Amino acid sequence: MKERFFAYVDERQRRYIDQLGEAVAIPSVSSQLDTHLPDIQKMMEYAANFIQRLGGQWELRDNPDGTSERPLPPLLLGHFPVDPRKKTVCVYGHLDVQPAHIDDGWDSEPFVLTERDGKLFGRGSTDDKGPALSWLWVIEAHKELGIDLPVNIKILYEGMEEYGSEGLFTFIRDEHDKFLGDVDFFCISDNYWIGKSKPCLTYGLRGLAYFELIVQGCEQDLHSGNMGGAVHEAMTDLIRLMGTLVDSQGRILIEGVMDDVKPVTPEEEAFYDPIEFDVESFKEEAKVKSISNKLLHGNKKDLLMARWRFPTLSLHGIEGAFSGSGAKTVIPAKVKGKFSMRLVPDQDPVRIEQVVRAHIAREFEKLNSPNKVELNMLHGAKSWLSSPDHPNYAAAAAAIQTVFQTTPDYTREGGSIPITTAFEEATGMNALLLPIGACDDMAHSQNEKYNITNLMNGIKVLGMYLHELGKIGGPKPSSCRCIPLTEEELMVPGAFMKGFRCKCEM
Amino acid sequence: MKERFFAYVDERQRRYIDQLGEAVAIPSVSSQLDTHLPDIQKMMEYAANFIQRLGGQWELRDNPDGTSERPLPPLLLGHFPVDPRKKTVCVYGHLDVQPAHIDDGWDSEPFVLTERDGKLFGRGSTDDKGPALSWLWVIEAHKELGIDLPVNIKILYEGMEEYGSEGLFTFIRDEHDKFLGDVDFFCISDNYWIGKSKPCLTYGLRGLAYFELIVQGCEQDLHSGNMGGAVHEAMTDLIRLMGTLVDSQGRILIEGVMDDVKPVTPEEEAFYDPIEFDVESFKEEAKVKSISNKLLHGNKKDLLMARWRFPTLSLHGIEGAFSGSGAKTVIPAKVKGKFSMRLVPDQDPVRIEQVVRAHIAREFEKLNSPNKVELNMLHGAKSWLSSPDHPNYAAAAAAIQTVFQTTPDYTREGGSIPITTAFEEATGMNALLLPIGACDDMAHSQNEKYNITNLMNGIKVLGMYLHELGKIGGPKPSSCRCIPLTEEELMVPGAFMKGFRCKCEM
Repeated sequence: MKERFFAYVDERQRRYIDQLGEAVAIPSVSSQLDTHLPDIQKMMEYAANFIQRLGGQWELRDNPDGTSERPLPPLLLGHFPVDPRKKTVCVYGHLDVQPAHIDDGWDSEPFVLTERDGKLFGRGSTDDKGPALSWLWVIEAHKELGIDLPVNIKILYEGMEEYGSEGLFTFIRDEHDKFLGDVDFFCISDNYWIGKSKPCLTYGLRGLAYFELIVQGCEQDLHSGNMGGAVHEAMTDLIRLMGTLVDSQGRILIEGVMDDVKPVTPEEEAFYDPIEFDVESFKEEAKVKSISNKLLHGNKKDLLMARWRFPTLSLHGIEGAFSGSGAKTVIPAKVKGKFSMRLVPDQDPVRIEQVVRAHIAREFEKLNSPNKVELNMLHGAKSWLSSPDHPNYAAAAAAIQTVFQTTPDYTREGGSIPITTAFEEATGMNALLLPIGACDDMAHSQNEKYNITNLMNGIKVLGMYLHELGKIGGPKPSSCRCIPLTEEELMVPGAFMKGFRCKCEM
Repeated sequence: MKERFFAYVDERQRRYIDQLGEAVAIPSVSSQLDTHLPDIQKMMEYAANFIQRLGGQWELRDNPDGTSERPLPPLLLGHFPVDPRKKTVCVYGHLDVQPAHIDDGWDSEPFVLTERDGKLFGRGSTDDKGPALSWLWVIEAHKELGIDLPVNIKILYEGMEEYGSEGLFTFIRDEHDKFLGDVDFFCISDNYWIGKSKPCLTYGLRGLAYFELIVQGCEQDLHSGNMGGAVHEAMTDLIRLMGTLVDSQGRILIEGVMDDVKPVTPEEEAFYDPIEFDVESFKEEAKVKSISNKLLHGNKKDLLMARWRFPTLSLHGIEGAFSGSGAKTVIPAKVKGKFSMRLVPDQDPVRIEQVVRAHIAREFEKLNSPNKVELNMLHGAKSWLSSPDHPNYAAAAAAIQTVFQTTPDYTREGGSIPITTAFEEATGMNALLLPIGACDDMAHSQNEKYNITNLMNGIKVLGMYLHELGKIGGPKPSSCRCIPLTEEELMVPGAFMKGFRCKCEM
């Protein structure tokens, strides 16, 4: 079957590019809903029509978080004929894109897919219209070649990913035992290789604890000439407090924050050895080459661990202080310092909030200041760590071996993709991050592109992955999910994404 | 003469209010030159016509810093017939105003002078159209009563004061031996009493050293999930450096910064005793009442000294970091921390820049960071300190005694009015700050007002002041000024305002 499938895919290259061009031409920008909501809807309908042509059933489900005052794009659900003997995979993708305008510095119109040197330039080409359409092309190939799908496929496409996946978490919570009730595996193709040539599978993401530290000294901004020397300035306290959080070597200085971070085992360390990753080219990517040419860690292993498996703390900025250019002699009345930590496994955002709160209280006490201080955690999300040993990952690795004749790198990422955790926590089923775009695809940036090789190999990998999934034996584990969270657990930051927790294991 | 003058002034109250209303109706907003330049010109012509009616000569002098691409309002110079036996006073005022719009929270239209409870509400009423017109009303009274002016009067009104007095410093430098060549005294009525009822004379202003501390870690902003742990973050360094500058009790932590600050002598201390100043109502003015109700100093003397005769350091904000509301997971590439010090006598901005630069170098060294750091002094201005014993001050004190039957408070201010130093340094002649508005006049703010009592008593004080000046004997000291600064001295921050320095003393 493999040869026929690969040959069929290879023949259709031009058609795939044309169809990707049709999708890219729809400016489905989710951060500009006031003007682009109809475009997202159009893009949803484009994909829905495709599903229909493939003999699937589709549904444009009203966004559960939308209101008549603030309509949100629908969710697109797709089903194909179900064989109860087969396992079920839910593939996720998003059809919305980041904003783009040629004046931002694009070399060609961002909403016109433009081929140059084997690359397809266009907004959404790699993030995420290319990968999302690839699932449909895989199904199309099976239909036209008369090959049975080896697993049942459920499609879940959203239109708000680039704006926080609004509505999706509610959907996942509400549908964990309905639309998602018989899902055995999840597959998300919305991240990237860590290099340009070697495929990878992503088994970990860091969590997030985002804080706002507020200090207020007076009711309104004052003149530093007139009032300097008279009042306890809020900025003085805030800057000193923010200065106690992290040092210039990136070490977090908050007592207790590292308590739950597991030491690195030799086994884990060995995991990093085969990863293809070039520190020198990473300096270019990290944009430090022309400034200091220095990273926090000089060798591959330490650097990847610092980005993937250790927490970090970044100071993002201050709201309420003077942030313009030039000079303003202001004593800001109320300032809000923004900082966040990327969390790793076993670091609970709830506990992190506690240790940060205790740290701020201790440090503020030392300042002997009468100003008002307040700490808010704006977002909390647990990290996600899966096991590359899971059959879902093994299936993808086998597919990659078939297409690329190599084993994938096993990678983690420093960022957070909260739906991964949401899928797993709501259903107990394994989620796989299966990237098919390259590290230099420039998602979110100018000149976003998708290599034709990635497009073509991606379709092949996704097809092979379904066949590898089809080989997995054992009973369907779909019957034991759904132990609702308690009220108390629902109060926990991040609980919105884990309205239910499932105890079942494959 | 006094009785006739006072009676004449009292009779004309309605007329003064009407004329102030005409002036307030002209929205001469200097920060919005693109739309309001014609209004400033109109206001200048309004005052020029007034001078002409009084038999004076006037000149609208092109602003020396204006260009055809960027026209600036002219300077208004006014002369009255000169008697070479009399001394000459140059009175300064400004005819431009801060922006104002009723939607900002005004209770009545800001450009319609509106009387309520003995107060005249309107933009510019107290800052500075009321005081500026008062000089003309004084001359008018003399003319109509047939009383000789006891001194020669030169009028210098500008239209850019609320936007940094652009052009004025160049004028002062260029005209120190021409228009200003025969001036014996300067009088500036553009500040405020420190209370609501007791007049004061201001003999000191703090200087300024405004810094921008730049740290750059990478070429462009990065994602904290992806890059957190990999790069030396600029914000970490900047926040830590800013945290070494001042503590929560307002103490400046920069080595050497206090070296030139003279200790307080018992004589000086005694100076503060008679000052009418209520710490409790100041808490309201300092806007801390509802927050902490705490000031850096609890008693009048310490508080006034902290605002007037000691340096202070304020952290104003950061440019280049996230300053919006909500959460953004950014690692800013290049951040600029803004802070400034108010300087006091004997603190030279040049030396202050050196000690700050040395401090930053020392502290940055401790951080062991490869990031790029840079310190710029954006503005440097020396403080100004005069002596209340000078005959110019004695004249004003005697005038106040005549009108108010009280001696004035002698005050300093925490802010900087650089033209004061500019006048003195260019000519060697004494400058007096003679405020006639009250502390609650809300200059620059909503509901700016001018009390009718301040308007009326102000005209009387200015008139009596001229007569007291007329009594001062001794030779005219106008012949020995004008030792030009060296090229090197001109490079010093603040030198723009002291193009020439004069050694002559009264």
